[in-house]
Amino acid sequence: MKKLINAPEDVVDEALAGMAAAHADLIRVEAPNIVVRRNAPRPGKVGIISGGGSGHEPMHGGFVGMGMLDAACPGAVFTSPVPDQMLAATKAVDGGAGVLHIVKNYTGDIMNFEMAAEMARAEGIDVSAIVIADDVAVKDSLWTAGRRGVGGTVLAEKIVGAAAEAGADLATVTALCQKVQDNVRSMGMALTSCTVPQAGKPTFEIGDDEMEIGVGIHGEPGRTRMKLASADEITDMLATPILDDLPFERGDKVLAFVNGMGGTPLIELYIVYNALKKILDGRGVVIARNLVGDYITSLDMAGFSITLLRLDDEFTRLWDAPVHTPGLRWGV
Amino acid sequence: MKKLINAPEDVVDEALAGMAAAHADLIRVEAPNIVVRRNAPRPGKVGIISGGGSGHEPMHGGFVGMGMLDAACPGAVFTSPVPDQMLAATKAVDGGAGVLHIVKNYTGDIMNFEMAAEMARAEGIDVSAIVIADDVAVKDSLWTAGRRGVGGTVLAEKIVGAAAEAGADLATVTALCQKVQDNVRSMGMALTSCTVPQAGKPTFEIGDDEMEIGVGIHGEPGRTRMKLASADEITDMLATPILDDLPFERGDKVLAFVNGMGGTPLIELYIVYNALKKILDGRGVVIARNLVGDYITSLDMAGFSITLLRLDDEFTRLWDAPVHTPGLRWGV
Repeated sequence: MKKLINAPEDVVDEALAGMAAAHADLIRVEAPNIVVRRNAPRPGKVGIISGGGSGHEPMHGGFVGMGMLDAACPGAVFTSPVPDQMLAATKAVDGGAGVLHIVKNYTGDIMNFEMAAEMARAEGIDVSAIVIADDVAVKDSLWTAGRRGVGGTVLAEKIVGAAAEAGADLATVTALCQKVQDNVRSMGMALTSCTVPQAGKPTFEIGDDEMEIGVGIHGEPGRTRMKLASADEITDMLATPILDDLPFERGDKVLAFVNGMGGTPLIELYIVYNALKKILDGRGVVIARNLVGDYITSLDMAGFSITLLRLDDEFTRLWDAPVHTPGLRWGV
Repeated sequence: MKKLINAPEDVVDEALAGMAAAHADLIRVEAPNIVVRRNAPRPGKVGIISGGGSGHEPMHGGFVGMGMLDAACPGAVFTSPVPDQMLAATKAVDGGAGVLHIVKNYTGDIMNFEMAAEMARAEGIDVSAIVIADDVAVKDSLWTAGRRGVGGTVLAEKIVGAAAEAGADLATVTALCQKVQDNVRSMGMALTSCTVPQAGKPTFEIGDDEMEIGVGIHGEPGRTRMKLASADEITDMLATPILDDLPFERGDKVLAFVNGMGGTPLIELYIVYNALKKILDGRGVVIARNLVGDYITSLDMAGFSITLLRLDDEFTRLWDAPVHTPGLRWGV
């Protein structure tokens, strides 16, 4: 295992300490391992929280800040955070207007966020939750009933965060988050496995001439294991199921998100974006906004995912709104 | 070779096409493969140009835009661009106030930028050039006489670009670029080799339990090949030679830049940043600004580099100035 770490059991704590030191103007890290927006809670603002296992940086802690999340709960690597973290985060950002939990669809996350929501409600905090389940690759999987929550989560956090920043109430941001979920689809692939530090060996074996199409963000199996193909072919293998699923139709405007898994260089992501643009052009789907880079990663996995969000004027306006977090910043 | 590409010979063209499509609001790509700021040339503004081999994305093309570069000349992967590219870029951004070439210290880049400068001067354009040579790891190397130009280049492009944006003249931005070079030092390391697409195999062999300390951004040999160590130990192996070289002294304010080489996930870079902060705290060196992420990469190499820039008020003000490029953005 080749990693820039000290003890495997200290990976998350030390990375959080590094992030807190690098971005002290934006965030603070508090016990029990929660990342909180520096000026939270803000009276009258709906709090937006997400969380899940670590190993997907910058998601979620890197999206805490102005115009996005108010707090994140990072679990151990690829392990759900515990209800106590989620409750602490909920309390830390409660400004009296309620708190939305944005939950990726993994069994542990769902169960623990539900438990935390109950505990928060018992303390008088109004909590709602939306589950993101945007991965078209597989239905039911390791750790998931139904579809997995992947890249759409990043877009949901940005759009919902912008609405909350502008003063929307809990019912409004909750409905908005559901609307993102209803209009977003994703699929990923891997050239290599990731390696969990405490496991010390690759999560799955894969041949030097093989790739996994439809892989999950923890290295869960996808649709098919096959021989390597060209970037154009691979991009089509991901884009077509996404396009056909919603379906995205001629004339639709979309946000096209090409996401690196952690071990893929940017030069390759731009080659994929070029391929994706040709496919969407061919189907008359218009890329009105885009995002290219590493935003929801899988440790050191080489690979990428595509996420398409069907845009309307509301989504576009909220996407364009200023954001200032460690991982995403514009307009400020 | 596991890469998201089509034909190896099309990698640079397709990546540039993808970048141009994704960032059409900021840049345009013109023959012969130059990345030009969308609204260039701007009358009365000094043009700032850099360039070098591809494979280091987002550098340099990803730094073209408001407050940074006016154009970049991407060569083939790890291959110097040709004088015709540099001349075309120089002419494309010449607004009558002259053009500065920021050149990383590699023999091919130096030679070709000198030739392009002569040709541009023959056409009546005032051209100056500054060589960045900030890598303390080795003196003389494959492709280099003297020190290699590495991470300091990113900081020079940002700071000099901000000055040019604010209307500084050619003599001023040239002197400023030299001042960055005089105050910046870097060193890198690799856990794995990179693989050049057209070579099809790793640039160097390295054992599963080995690392290369002082590696160059093309996989050039460093100071020493040794057994893997902890993140704290490795960070010290890079930070100490940097600190001792300038030297950086107690009370100095610095910009601390932890850069991923392309195949290293962000979670590890934050662990390194945490280690670096402890080292600098211990020596009384104050981190006043920081940058953590992939900015000058080496294809898919796993590893990182540290760059320290000694800050004064002028550098800090120019660093903080708005920038809007594909790879670096704030304040707008």
